[in-house]
Amino acid sequence: MLITLTTDFGWGSTYVAAVKGVLLGMNPALRLVDLTHAIAPQDLKHAAVFLAETIPWFPAGTIHLIVVDPGVGTERNLLYIEAGGHRLLAPDNGCWLPAATRLGGPLSVRRLADNRYWRNPVSSTFHGRDILAPVAAHLSLGLSPDALGPQVQTWVALHLPEPVIRDGHLEGEVLFVDAFGNLLTNIPGTDLALMANHSAQVEIQFNELDERAAVVKTYSEAQPGALVALASSWGTLEIAVAHGSAARRLGIGPGARIIISLCQDGGD
Amino acid sequence: MLITLTTDFGWGSTYVAAVKGVLLGMNPALRLVDLTHAIAPQDLKHAAVFLAETIPWFPAGTIHLIVVDPGVGTERNLLYIEAGGHRLLAPDNGCWLPAATRLGGPLSVRRLADNRYWRNPVSSTFHGRDILAPVAAHLSLGLSPDALGPQVQTWVALHLPEPVIRDGHLEGEVLFVDAFGNLLTNIPGTDLALMANHSAQVEIQFNELDERAAVVKTYSEAQPGALVALASSWGTLEIAVAHGSAARRLGIGPGARIIISLCQDGGD
Amino acid sequence: MLITLTTDFGWGSTYVAAVKGVLLGMNPALRLVDLTHAIAPQDLKHAAVFLAETIPWFPAGTIHLIVVDPGVGTERNLLYIEAGGHRLLAPDNGCWLPAATRLGGPLSVRRLADNRYWRNPVSSTFHGRDILAPVAAHLSLGLSPDALGPQVQTWVALHLPEPVIRDGHLEGEVLFVDAFGNLLTNIPGTDLALMANHSAQVEIQFNELDERAAVVKTYSEAQPGALVALASSWGTLEIAVAHGSAARRLGIGPGARIIISLCQDGGD
Repeated sequence: MLITLTTDFGWGSTYVAAVKGVLLGMNPALRLVDLTHAIAPQDLKHAAVFLAETIPWFPAGTIHLIVVDPGVGTERNLLYIEAGGHRLLAPDNGCWLPAATRLGGPLSVRRLADNRYWRNPVSSTFHGRDILAPVAAHLSLGLSPDALGPQVQTWVALHLPEPVIRDGHLEGEVLFVDAFGNLLTNIPGTDLALMANHSAQVEIQFNELDERAAVVKTYSEAQPGALVALASSWGTLEIAVAHGSAARRLGIGPGARIIISLCQDGGD
Repeated sequence: MLITLTTDFGWGSTYVAAVKGVLLGMNPALRLVDLTHAIAPQDLKHAAVFLAETIPWFPAGTIHLIVVDPGVGTERNLLYIEAGGHRLLAPDNGCWLPAATRLGGPLSVRRLADNRYWRNPVSSTFHGRDILAPVAAHLSLGLSPDALGPQVQTWVALHLPEPVIRDGHLEGEVLFVDAFGNLLTNIPGTDLALMANHSAQVEIQFNELDERAAVVKTYSEAQPGALVALASSWGTLEIAVAHGSAARRLGIGPGARIIISLCQDGGD
Repeated sequence: MLITLTTDFGWGSTYVAAVKGVLLGMNPALRLVDLTHAIAPQDLKHAAVFLAETIPWFPAGTIHLIVVDPGVGTERNLLYIEAGGHRLLAPDNGCWLPAATRLGGPLSVRRLADNRYWRNPVSSTFHGRDILAPVAAHLSLGLSPDALGPQVQTWVALHLPEPVIRDGHLEGEVLFVDAFGNLLTNIPGTDLALMANHSAQVEIQFNELDERAAVVKTYSEAQPGALVALASSWGTLEIAVAHGSAARRLGIGPGARIIISLCQDGGD
């Protein structure tokens, strides 16, 4: 049985190791897969983007344990979610919703309520270890989800920002920056692939910044150091510097709102 | 068979990958669990705190491979330790002792002596790869611990710092700082849980610093930015800033000795 | 079936998680081993050193997935390589060659050509997810390598820098710096072990820098803070500071060319 782990605990933190210990302590046959422990602390949008881009690749039947939980210790619920044959365990803060939407939408959502399946006592600050991990282990051992708690029809919603068209420009957001310094946005990139063969250019505006980027199919079509726009491997607009870092060059990070316009005059 | 890995090699170092290769090269059926590779280099106290907080969660029968070894190449021994059904392999530098103590104390300690179970030749600087990993693989394949070497009755002791009561104040130490900037101390936190409902405050002193913190049950009881004291998920006193970093706010890191006093006048 | 992962994606990136998802989505029984995701971005030499030092420790039969791919989207090939019973999947950029050489040399090299074993559609920028991972999963499920594409007799070569003897000095290169700040070079260290008992010294030159280091067998023979030279666990010359960082002390990083001379006058 596969369980993936997604947390904001930091790689190698005691919290991650404790969660792994609780899971394997209850079911030594589990196979754990680290997705990431580098979600920015308590950053629900980061978690939501990460989960939506990664969870759908896993096989149906996988249990996904998600511990990004700024509300720990408040009255917020903890949830069990079924979507597309996957099973998610997460706090009721919405970070799981875009992933579930990509999986076809949540089919069943339950509020974790029966503390017989929790660690006893439950701490005030670490429900990942004390509730979510034991529940995941019980599920992996065959416990029916019905036993966890009642179905709920409402939950906290979190939707990823949608790009908008304004005055003929596309306005969108940088969702994340990868290790190469490429900027991954929420702006659809489908048209870019078609434009890539016609020396098209786009104009990128962000605060005072106003730069042009050649539209390419892949990084290596451009000279090293050139700013380019392309369709990312996720299908959205990506801004990159060939053999360099667009994040450093433009001074742009996650959350930046950018405006994209197609240049009328082609290459210059 | 489960083997956990705890090192100070850094995530993604060649040393970690080599240790994994040796283990799986000898027993391809092993299931490896990364606990951490981010122990501060050669920091035995960090290793001791980490192991004590994490190893006891794993199932009995687990082999724990611990490579934090500032004395590599000296005459220091390498040890096999049994405690609470767990099996630990570690240098004789004490970093394993607090974990073994939490597991009920070491039942059997052997000095690794029979080099038939080691890699040949053994390097002078990497006994994790050349001795500890091959021995762990042999154990996982069914080798009796008796074969490893003679039992020993003495070993290097390392005890975690104990808090002291002085002039009616509690004096303790920050054991580690988590990814959120929360300060985890060695000061017992049991009483804090009881105080949390009565608008109690504690005074925190560290060098020139003298600040008050509200006693809470969980982070979210406080306003964002407020300094709070609470019982951590490990049961000890934790100092936090709601939605912020106490480490950055107070300029305090691991090893800092702090003085805690209960404020007589309650909230102000 | 074991699959190791080596990338320059960064720990916890969405790209790593997506690759894991594709692999497990096609073959849920796979056992994945993270070697590193911290190869310096697009640094083929770093990847080559890392792979050569780590892959040979794994058992024959292992599939090694290598995604360090600065040429993604160009006409560069993707390769399947057999060497010493291991199976490697990597871009045709040479980073796999030193590892294959240590495994006895490549016995069979194929160009991935049959897109029935790829994800459809293939993105322009992420062949690790869309080609290499699906091919690895197919191989793990028993697909014959013959089906992947035709054998090729030529490929991009990348050879690790060789040390040279010049005017009686050894001139070599720092291949990598470990988490302790030790400098691992490509200069053979075999003779050092013999010299270690005779208070020998070496002179280290790098740009303006000119320092002496005692030759030791292990770090702990020296006083804390002393600069030492020793035979590394890989068998090459290593420069270290006992209980300190040689990288910080000397201001030297990967790629630095250094000159080593044996001091005629012994210790001073």
